[in-house]
Amino acid sequence: MKIAIAQLNPTVGHLDANAEDIRQALDKADAAGADLLITPELALCGYPPKDLLENPNFIRDTLAMQKQLSEETHKTPFILGGIASEQSDPLRPGQHIFNAALVFDAGEIKACHRKILLPNYDVFDEARYFSAGQGPTLYTVKGENIGITICEDIWNDKTYWSSGDYDTNPVQESIDAGATCIVNLSASPFGRGKHKTRTQMLEELSRQHQVPLIYVNQVGGNDGLIFDGRSMVVATSGEKSFMAPAFKSDVFITETTSTTCVDDESATWNEDRDVREALILGVRDYVRKCGFKKVVLGLSGGIDSTITAAIAVAAVGPENVIGIGMPSEYSSQGSIDDAKELATRLGIRFDMIPIQEIFAAFNQSLSSAFSDFPPDVTEENLQARIRGSLLMAYSNKFGALLLTTGNKSECAVGYCTLYGDMCGGLAVISDLYKTEVYDLCRDWNSAANPPIPETCIEKPPSAELRPDQKDEDSLPPYDVLDGILRAYIDELDESENIIRKGYSAELVHQVINMVIMTEYKRRQMPPGLKVSAKAFGEGRRLPIAQAYRPKSAP
Amino acid sequence: MKIAIAQLNPTVGHLDANAEDIRQALDKADAAGADLLITPELALCGYPPKDLLENPNFIRDTLAMQKQLSEETHKTPFILGGIASEQSDPLRPGQHIFNAALVFDAGEIKACHRKILLPNYDVFDEARYFSAGQGPTLYTVKGENIGITICEDIWNDKTYWSSGDYDTNPVQESIDAGATCIVNLSASPFGRGKHKTRTQMLEELSRQHQVPLIYVNQVGGNDGLIFDGRSMVVATSGEKSFMAPAFKSDVFITETTSTTCVDDESATWNEDRDVREALILGVRDYVRKCGFKKVVLGLSGGIDSTITAAIAVAAVGPENVIGIGMPSEYSSQGSIDDAKELATRLGIRFDMIPIQEIFAAFNQSLSSAFSDFPPDVTEENLQARIRGSLLMAYSNKFGALLLTTGNKSECAVGYCTLYGDMCGGLAVISDLYKTEVYDLCRDWNSAANPPIPETCIEKPPSAELRPDQKDEDSLPPYDVLDGILRAYIDELDESENIIRKGYSAELVHQVINMVIMTEYKRRQMPPGLKVSAKAFGEGRRLPIAQAYRPKSAP
Repeated sequence: MKIAIAQLNPTVGHLDANAEDIRQALDKADAAGADLLITPELALCGYPPKDLLENPNFIRDTLAMQKQLSEETHKTPFILGGIASEQSDPLRPGQHIFNAALVFDAGEIKACHRKILLPNYDVFDEARYFSAGQGPTLYTVKGENIGITICEDIWNDKTYWSSGDYDTNPVQESIDAGATCIVNLSASPFGRGKHKTRTQMLEELSRQHQVPLIYVNQVGGNDGLIFDGRSMVVATSGEKSFMAPAFKSDVFITETTSTTCVDDESATWNEDRDVREALILGVRDYVRKCGFKKVVLGLSGGIDSTITAAIAVAAVGPENVIGIGMPSEYSSQGSIDDAKELATRLGIRFDMIPIQEIFAAFNQSLSSAFSDFPPDVTEENLQARIRGSLLMAYSNKFGALLLTTGNKSECAVGYCTLYGDMCGGLAVISDLYKTEVYDLCRDWNSAANPPIPETCIEKPPSAELRPDQKDEDSLPPYDVLDGILRAYIDELDESENIIRKGYSAELVHQVINMVIMTEYKRRQMPPGLKVSAKAFGEGRRLPIAQAYRPKSAP
Repeated sequence: MKIAIAQLNPTVGHLDANAEDIRQALDKADAAGADLLITPELALCGYPPKDLLENPNFIRDTLAMQKQLSEETHKTPFILGGIASEQSDPLRPGQHIFNAALVFDAGEIKACHRKILLPNYDVFDEARYFSAGQGPTLYTVKGENIGITICEDIWNDKTYWSSGDYDTNPVQESIDAGATCIVNLSASPFGRGKHKTRTQMLEELSRQHQVPLIYVNQVGGNDGLIFDGRSMVVATSGEKSFMAPAFKSDVFITETTSTTCVDDESATWNEDRDVREALILGVRDYVRKCGFKKVVLGLSGGIDSTITAAIAVAAVGPENVIGIGMPSEYSSQGSIDDAKELATRLGIRFDMIPIQEIFAAFNQSLSSAFSDFPPDVTEENLQARIRGSLLMAYSNKFGALLLTTGNKSECAVGYCTLYGDMCGGLAVISDLYKTEVYDLCRDWNSAANPPIPETCIEKPPSAELRPDQKDEDSLPPYDVLDGILRAYIDELDESENIIRKGYSAELVHQVINMVIMTEYKRRQMPPGLKVSAKAFGEGRRLPIAQAYRPKSAP
């Protein structure tokens, strides 16, 4: 069977443009003589549409556009990731909405699979929007009985996932109903190392059921989520026989019967490279899909703004990146030089706006109100907020999206200023711990044309908001801090287990307390690009006015 | 049967303090010789605990504290809103977590009802955390067979809610199993006019099944949600026989057999008064539960900051409120006078920090970068951001929580500055449309000691960010704007229906477009107090990088 895999990059809600992409994919499939084209999950409306699904206009327009697509003449039958009602004609509006895979062939709707397993954890809210489908859906092409599944439907194999949380196994149900091949339409977000797990799981499923498996994944960034594509075919032998490239949108023609797999370059990337490419795509798509061309960011000479600038240049080109240096009296000459050197290496515009005079004007205006109080964190924050205001002025004046440069360690413990360095439309590295930022920089610099000035990597990190300040004056060393944070945030580990890993109980409780006390800042963060299993933002929802602190184990 | 209704105000996660409140309630019930005490839903851990429920320490500590409470000796049996596992001993940790009502009597667990209907819409994410219980739970006290239900369990009566979305009706199941009385543990958030609907529904349920109904609701603010209390008993006659006061925490002893109902003062409040009292409690609890005593806010002389200041004074007392006037060259003398007059009426500290010199320093620093560009929205935003930075400096220096003063109309269409007037820890009136703000002010001023200077109500609204600016230069008149916004946001109405109400199609699409384009600002808003059916924030989740615009009807 000749399959056309449409690894599409839809913009959420852009029905016209997304439909056009689907038509172009069908034209290619027609030209290649494919037997079947498959799109990702919700390919027409884009994933995740979130509360657009509560907008009656959106439902009506999406159903209407699906109907239009179903009636257009293409040689190739296709499975469209879309929405459906409970009606016998799934495109007729009803009471309920399903996440669906619709088989269109020669102007007719041949089948409709309604997603059975609805993920409702982390960033996923599908139970909020969709009713759950029931039972398998088969569709026959060239003698193959295709069992149609959607994303989560295949993530419940008890032999692979011991903690499988669902009562039904749609893959098993499809096989029991006679499927000789499993197709999966997905919108499965990128995560560090996740594509290896995904490949193993798909290979295991194929081996277990002795059927080929065709997995079609969305590609592109939609807000904080990045989809890596890497659509895949697993032959009956249980081995991957085709993998589409990571982070690229295209139509790929492949055979279910092929047994040798030649991967593209992206298969050889290490995890740091993988994360870097994910972030580049995430920035590029957010900028583009929000209607921007240019970005602006502050360049302090520190490692965080440095790597953010390098990612921005790779995403939108040096001609579209503006870097601003905003030194104060506490800025070291070394940092200023590093920022200049970076701008030169990257070939971007670099403006310098010293902040001393604005800072003096603030202090003067506040002098009578604050006369009885010594300088404290107020004045440190004020410097960060002056910088935030200057960056936003650039953003306003030049129509450039401001990129936020904070890392996950500082977002976690609050070593950042709300309305200061937290300003921006997109947080690029907010899901990378500080130690991961260094790893990414070293990996990137090991390639040709190293973008990161070596001194940025070597010097001790400092916020430079008071004389001779170093991060380690206020925080534990980053390898210790990140170890505790990863266990607490990403792994949801019990505090006793974290202590058992060799950290002092006092430090563990102190770090956890800092994370809890910083919740109010994170609530007002811009969306951040998610590259880990647990990122700050919509996938982590905590109350602010709360008093829970872990007790010691009984 | 003599019932003790513990209308509690828990702080989320404050297990020790919440347990102590429960013990004190039990002491009162013991002293009054009550037959049964009932707490609200999740009374020990507080509602909503959100992702604390994914923290293994939190689950363990909550279960342990519930066990401790179950073993303490009280005369009065009690039904505790808590969590439970799937184990036969519901306090033994298991694989799943249920939202539960546990009956404790003389050191034993007599029954455990696991919530059957889990709300997963608007601000509710219960399917994210809880497994759904099955079947009714009865417990007998003094010959009454009590059918135990939790919040949403009773909100699915098809005779009352035609759109009932669930397949099961736990009330009917309880009655079928022989219940002679229904108890409901709730954490049902306040909404404008909602308590009337709630009363009617409970009366209807009681009439239909010919049983008395005891409804125990949480009181207090937890982040953006405000719980109004108003716990209730409905006699078999189908009429309310007792209602606890709104917005007050206490233990109320009542009889299920009483037939006359004497309401307290809160029953006579009109909706504006009701909303005002809700906001006052919301501010008081957020400030207190976040560990603050003082608040600070900017006073422009405009209606929004004026009512916010009045609410703040009612919430935390005039001695804990700092108002800051920050006039620019565009500020009218009238507005400055109004702000001073307000501060005098409220008896609060009022500082004046003119912003011209700071603004001049910014302009000077940016002059070479911006020399080729005329002044535009950049400079307007800069003024707002200077004010935001000054307010945050006060917040930092004096440890005072900054209150945000934006209303729902401006949050909707973006007539506000991110990192400027949107700064703050809590948005007090972000769920009130501008016309509703005026209504609240007029209502408040109709009482003794009117807090709002009349000129604030009478003058045309202006942001005063450029010469002679008026809101209506940029926006439609507020009654028109609010009419469109309410239909689009609160009622999720189709655009054609909104146009059919008499608004021009062009204006409707223009307003909808402004709402969509402002999503990025709202994503970074502080939590806002919810008083409508659809508030901005966690109950309204939209993508930012999206391109959907309603098409014209087919």
